[in-house]
Amino acid sequence: MIREEIINVRLSDDGSSVIILDQTLLPNETRYIALDTANAMYEAIYSLRVRGAPAIGIFAAYALYVLASKLEVNSYEQFSAGVQEYSQYLDSSRPTAVNLSVQLKRMTNLVTRLADFPIPQIVEAMREVADKIYNEDVEMCRAISEHGLTLIKDGFGIMTQCNAGPIATSKYGTGLGPILLGHEKGLKLNAFICETRPLLQGSRLTAYELSNAGVDSTLICDNMASMVMRKGKINAVFVGCDRIARNGDTANKIGTSNLAILAKYYNIPFYVFGPSTTIDMECETGADIRIELRKPEEIREMFFEKPMAPAEMKCYNPSFDVTDNKLITAIITENGIFKPKGGDTPMF
Amino acid sequence: MIREEIINVRLSDDGSSVIILDQTLLPNETRYIALDTANAMYEAIYSLRVRGAPAIGIFAAYALYVLASKLEVNSYEQFSAGVQEYSQYLDSSRPTAVNLSVQLKRMTNLVTRLADFPIPQIVEAMREVADKIYNEDVEMCRAISEHGLTLIKDGFGIMTQCNAGPIATSKYGTGLGPILLGHEKGLKLNAFICETRPLLQGSRLTAYELSNAGVDSTLICDNMASMVMRKGKINAVFVGCDRIARNGDTANKIGTSNLAILAKYYNIPFYVFGPSTTIDMECETGADIRIELRKPEEIREMFFEKPMAPAEMKCYNPSFDVTDNKLITAIITENGIFKPKGGDTPMF
Repeated sequence: MIREEIINVRLSDDGSSVIILDQTLLPNETRYIALDTANAMYEAIYSLRVRGAPAIGIFAAYALYVLASKLEVNSYEQFSAGVQEYSQYLDSSRPTAVNLSVQLKRMTNLVTRLADFPIPQIVEAMREVADKIYNEDVEMCRAISEHGLTLIKDGFGIMTQCNAGPIATSKYGTGLGPILLGHEKGLKLNAFICETRPLLQGSRLTAYELSNAGVDSTLICDNMASMVMRKGKINAVFVGCDRIARNGDTANKIGTSNLAILAKYYNIPFYVFGPSTTIDMECETGADIRIELRKPEEIREMFFEKPMAPAEMKCYNPSFDVTDNKLITAIITENGIFKPKGGDTPMF
Repeated sequence: MIREEIINVRLSDDGSSVIILDQTLLPNETRYIALDTANAMYEAIYSLRVRGAPAIGIFAAYALYVLASKLEVNSYEQFSAGVQEYSQYLDSSRPTAVNLSVQLKRMTNLVTRLADFPIPQIVEAMREVADKIYNEDVEMCRAISEHGLTLIKDGFGIMTQCNAGPIATSKYGTGLGPILLGHEKGLKLNAFICETRPLLQGSRLTAYELSNAGVDSTLICDNMASMVMRKGKINAVFVGCDRIARNGDTANKIGTSNLAILAKYYNIPFYVFGPSTTIDMECETGADIRIELRKPEEIREMFFEKPMAPAEMKCYNPSFDVTDNKLITAIITENGIFKPKGGDTPMF
C-alpha cells in the first residue's frame, strides 16, 4: 500500500545532481527538484525541502558525491580540501540530527582512506558508499518496522508526532514503519497525527503518507493530545528521533517531550524508533545535545495568509526537544527493542 | 498601561445594536462592528468575533436586550415567548462556556419576574441588568487580578494559554489580569504565550494585548511548552476557564490540560482564574461538562494560504478540554484563592 513511486532522495541518472521530493510543497503539490550546487543543497536541508534524520544523511552523502565529482583540482590535497570544505558547509545546515554528521564523516573518512588512489576512483568509491548508505537505510527501516510490529495489536490507536515515515527515510520509515507494515498485514489501526507546529510536518506529510496508504487516520492540533489520550483512544505513542544519547535521552522534533509526559500521566507506552546510527556515543546524556533554534517568522507568519502575531513579537522557536529516558518505554533500532536503564546509566 | 480605548463589547449610543471589536481580524486590524439581528449575533459568537467566557456573557445580555427592544408584539405572552426564543437561539451558539447560559437565564428570569409590568418598562429593566452584568464583570476582574497578584513575584516567568485578557472580559481580564496589574505596579514579568491552535488566540490576541501593554512577552507554539518549562523559565501557569465543576475540574480552551500535566511533571504551580459565575453547581465533576466539537476546516485550512493537510483528512477538533482538579494548584475567583479538595469532593 506504500506508494512505491515516491523516491524521496536519489541521484540523477547522469550523476550530476541529487533529485529530491520538495517536501515544503506537500500535500498540495508533488514536485521533484534537482540540486547541483552546494548552496542549493544547504538550502534544501535548512528549509526542510529534504528532512527526516535518516533522509538528510542519505541526501548529504549523495550531495557530497555530486559536489566532489565537479571539483576542478590538480592534486589529491586540493581535492581532499574541497571535499572537506563542502562537508563542513553541508554539516552546518542543521545541528541536531546526528545522521547528517555521521554520513558526511563516513564520506570524508573514505576520501582520507583512499588518498593513494586516482581522484576519479575516489569519486566512484564515494558514489558506491552513498548507494550503500541508501541501501543500508532501506534494510534498517525494514528491520525497525518489523521489531515495531511486535508492539502493535489489532485495533490499536497510535499517536504520532512530526513525520517519521517513508519520506523521512529511504523507504518504510521508522516511527510510521510499523503502522504501515501492520496495515499491509491487515491490522486495523487508528493513527492520531499531531500536526506538529510550526512547520506542520504532521498535517502536511504524515497525514499525506498515512491517508495515501489507506490507514484510518485523524489529524489533531498538538494541544489536543491530552484530550485524545484522556478519551482512551491511544494505546501507544510512536515517534522518530534525531539524536539519542548513550543513556537513552532522545532529541526529536519539538513537542516530543510533551507527548512523552502526557503518555506517562495516562499510562500509555511511549516508543522511540530510529536506526542505530542515531545513537551518539559521544553524548552521555540529553544535556549534551545541541538544539537548533530557528527563525521567529516560522511561528508568526509562515504558511499564513496574513501575519498571525504582532509584527515584532518575540518568539522562541526550538526545532527539537529532549525527552528524558525515564519517559521512554523502549527505543527500537534495527537491532531490537531496548529499555532505558534510567538516570545517567548508558543503555548503548 | 492597558489601552483604555479598547471597549470589547458595548451597546450603541441609540441602543439599537451591540458594538463589538471583531477579534477574528486581530492583530492585523482593529475593527468594530455593530450587530442588530439574531443571526449576526449568533454568528459573532460561533465565529469567535466576540469570545472569552465572561465577554460572551456580557454580549449575550446586551444582544438579548437589543432583540427584545425590537420585538413587535401585542401582549406580554408574545413578548416573553419572543425573548425565550432568542435566548435559546443565542444559547445554542456555543455549549461549553457557562457564562453564556447564566447571563441569558438572568435576563429571561427578569422578564418572567416583571410579567405584570408594561413591555417598555421590562425592556428598560433588561438594559439595566445588562449594564449591571457588565459592571459586575469589571469589578470581578479587578478583584481576581488583585488576588492573583499575591501569587506573583518580581522576575516571574508566567505561561499563558488562549486569551484570558481584557478582550475576553469587560476589562483587566482574568488569567492575564494579574500580569497586567503586576506590570502596572512595576514588577518585571516574562510572559510565555502559547499560540493556541487551531484559532491562535494566543498569538493573535494575548500577544497583541501583552505587547501593547509593554509586558516582556515571548510567543511559542503549543508543543514548545515542555521545552520552556524544562529550561526553568516558568514559575507559574495562568489560565482562564469556561466552566468549573463543583469538585474543581475545569473546562478551558483545548490544550489547558496538556499544560497542567506538564506543569505537574515540572513541579510548577498551575492556576485557574475566573469569575465565580463560571462555577456550575449543576456539574459535580468534569465528566458532566459538554465539550464543543468544531469544524475540521479550522485545523486543515483556516488562516492558511493553502490547505495544510490532504483535502478530505479527518480531523478531531474539540474546542475545550477538562483539567482534573488534582492538577490545579488553586482556582482564583473574585472571592479569593481556593484549593481543590481532590477526587469528587465539592470545593464550592
